[in-house]
Amino acid sequence: MKVLVLGGDGFCGWPTSLHLSDLGHDVTIVDNLSRREIDLELEVDSLTPIRPIGERRRVWQTLTGKEIGFVHLDLATEFDRFEALLRELRPDALVHFAEQRAAPYSMRSTAAKRYTVDNNVRATHNVLAAIVDSGLDVALVHLGTMGVYGYGWSGSAPIPEGYLTVKVPTPDGDIEREILHPANPGSVYHLTKTLDQLLFAFYCANDQLRITDLHQGIVWGTQTPQTALDERLINRFDYDGDYGTVLNRFLMQAAIGHPLTVHGTGGQTRAFIHIRDTVRCVQIALENPPVRGDKPLVFNQVTEVHRVRELAELIAKLTGAEVAFLPNPRREAVENELNVSREKFLALGLNPIFLSEGLLEEVREVALRYKDRADPTKIIARSVWRQGMETSPDLMRS
Amino acid sequence: MKVLVLGGDGFCGWPTSLHLSDLGHDVTIVDNLSRREIDLELEVDSLTPIRPIGERRRVWQTLTGKEIGFVHLDLATEFDRFEALLRELRPDALVHFAEQRAAPYSMRSTAAKRYTVDNNVRATHNVLAAIVDSGLDVALVHLGTMGVYGYGWSGSAPIPEGYLTVKVPTPDGDIEREILHPANPGSVYHLTKTLDQLLFAFYCANDQLRITDLHQGIVWGTQTPQTALDERLINRFDYDGDYGTVLNRFLMQAAIGHPLTVHGTGGQTRAFIHIRDTVRCVQIALENPPVRGDKPLVFNQVTEVHRVRELAELIAKLTGAEVAFLPNPRREAVENELNVSREKFLALGLNPIFLSEGLLEEVREVALRYKDRADPTKIIARSVWRQGMETSPDLMRS
Repeated sequence: MKVLVLGGDGFCGWPTSLHLSDLGHDVTIVDNLSRREIDLELEVDSLTPIRPIGERRRVWQTLTGKEIGFVHLDLATEFDRFEALLRELRPDALVHFAEQRAAPYSMRSTAAKRYTVDNNVRATHNVLAAIVDSGLDVALVHLGTMGVYGYGWSGSAPIPEGYLTVKVPTPDGDIEREILHPANPGSVYHLTKTLDQLLFAFYCANDQLRITDLHQGIVWGTQTPQTALDERLINRFDYDGDYGTVLNRFLMQAAIGHPLTVHGTGGQTRAFIHIRDTVRCVQIALENPPVRGDKPLVFNQVTEVHRVRELAELIAKLTGAEVAFLPNPRREAVENELNVSREKFLALGLNPIFLSEGLLEEVREVALRYKDRADPTKIIARSVWRQGMETSPDLMRS
Repeated sequence: MKVLVLGGDGFCGWPTSLHLSDLGHDVTIVDNLSRREIDLELEVDSLTPIRPIGERRRVWQTLTGKEIGFVHLDLATEFDRFEALLRELRPDALVHFAEQRAAPYSMRSTAAKRYTVDNNVRATHNVLAAIVDSGLDVALVHLGTMGVYGYGWSGSAPIPEGYLTVKVPTPDGDIEREILHPANPGSVYHLTKTLDQLLFAFYCANDQLRITDLHQGIVWGTQTPQTALDERLINRFDYDGDYGTVLNRFLMQAAIGHPLTVHGTGGQTRAFIHIRDTVRCVQIALENPPVRGDKPLVFNQVTEVHRVRELAELIAKLTGAEVAFLPNPRREAVENELNVSREKFLALGLNPIFLSEGLLEEVREVALRYKDRADPTKIIARSVWRQGMETSPDLMRS
């Protein structure tokens, strides 16, 4: 299968590109390297020493004999080049990771809010418009987020995979309707993924595009079998207050002797998935596309659910780290329950990786190996959801 | 009240600006003149001889002594200038018409689709981000569309004003939830208004902005008491296949001896409102803003409902025009019923103008007066919803 991986230089995109190449697919990465540019802006770097995309590709080819293409291209602003690329390469499928993906970054400043909306909406819409314009029958797999649903909305019912059946009262009695699950985004970043959903629904209805939307939980882990082949293939590891996600952040904090930073009570319950399952889910989605005329196919890309406080306690017990309860810079429920349907990937053969000491240990080892690269002044989350919200001072000096 | 009218040079914006100025409000128009530029692109002109914005403002001041400000500014691309303007003028309210508003134009080409999404989403999001950044407590009134709801979705129940109460099945029995009415947009243009709704919901929840969204039906009529004061204040009259809307289009076609162009069977049922009611609805919305912390306040800005075929028959009977049934360039239901809640504006004092011979005659007189300005090769709708859809040849030679 010929696949373009949009955003293929990022945290999910790079291991997905390697996984698909490893399976024998013909992979081309399309990326504007914006994630590396944001590192420059935030004056922070991946804890792991990621290599330039050219070196990554050369090493992969040397080790495996497989070639991964690369096109440096901005989807939001270079529509004509992207469409020409589609017509030239005629891919069977696109995997679309090419969006600004951090909730805290999206709330960091007015400029970051605007960048997140402008970049994400335009990139997604340009991809859709280019597919229609090209006339190609290309399947699109998009990385969405569990955050489109919000938390705790549907009572004791599990969050369904994309669509909710409701009863609408009418003068002739209730009628049943299947609707896209109502959107309850918690940040400008999550908001953009709810906008994407409406774009997808329209382009499926009007142009019969074939689209799969993956509502992913919080990813943990760093390495996949492919990224672990050689240090020069290593995946990103974000630990800073904007891009670091909760479980990896705790493991890194434990590794450098920093308290585990819990926001608020830690009562937030969230869905998780290991990066090795991310790449397999994308593979399964590519192998099981919808047919023309279908509405967008939605998978919940999550394997387990945990409360943040309990994760902190687990890591503290494992490592001896302290837990610090900090002011929450986000506008979110203090505590929530979470019950998520996740049948579809299981039915298609996903054999999930659950949180286990072994895999936690792997992440911790990565963090320990590179701990001298960490800047402790970048750890505390400082992007607030509303002006005037309190944040913690640094807990560790550099 | 100090009001900025964003898009105040357009078909709804101009008469609204005059109406608000007439009421004694301090009005400043913010417009990039894009609607006039699209006329140049489409090689068509308003049937009525609209004057440059400077002349419009000078005439208004001469006649009434009231000054209307004007800032030539692109909301989608000139964020910093807009924010500086907000901080300088410190308005009490913004009325936001500044979006590409024609469904056929939005489907005309890939470039037009992209322009509509990029312009509308960025303009709306920039307005929201600028309000937050400025720290001003400014009420926002936005022109939405009935098209966000789609047609015929909710059975015999009337389309509610924005929010729908549904029952969600759970293991513990049904729970009631009030949700934003599910989005069923029929074009890229309508799609952008569904994206706006999600932007509004988020900024109300996160930043407690005060936002009113007006889901307007198809506007008919041209003149308001203010635009009729002097020919140099006359409002736009669009008759072309992209921007001409159905009732005005029929009246103009009758005036020049062109058959009335019905798409498909004419079984489409749509909601209508006269331009004189549009400006009064905006006034009522400005006088009744939501309070901080409320979700977006939604009004259905419609006064009556008609089937397109029946409107054509009515105009044919009144004028002796023929009716031509043409291929439908849109993807839409052949026939639909429509039942729309419209209690809120009535409760706040709107005394609606219904279709009557007198007002139809007024539009016909405007069309007759300027019929020599019409280009009959621009009348047939040629923007198709999917490549390969059939359209009619011209029915009249120039």
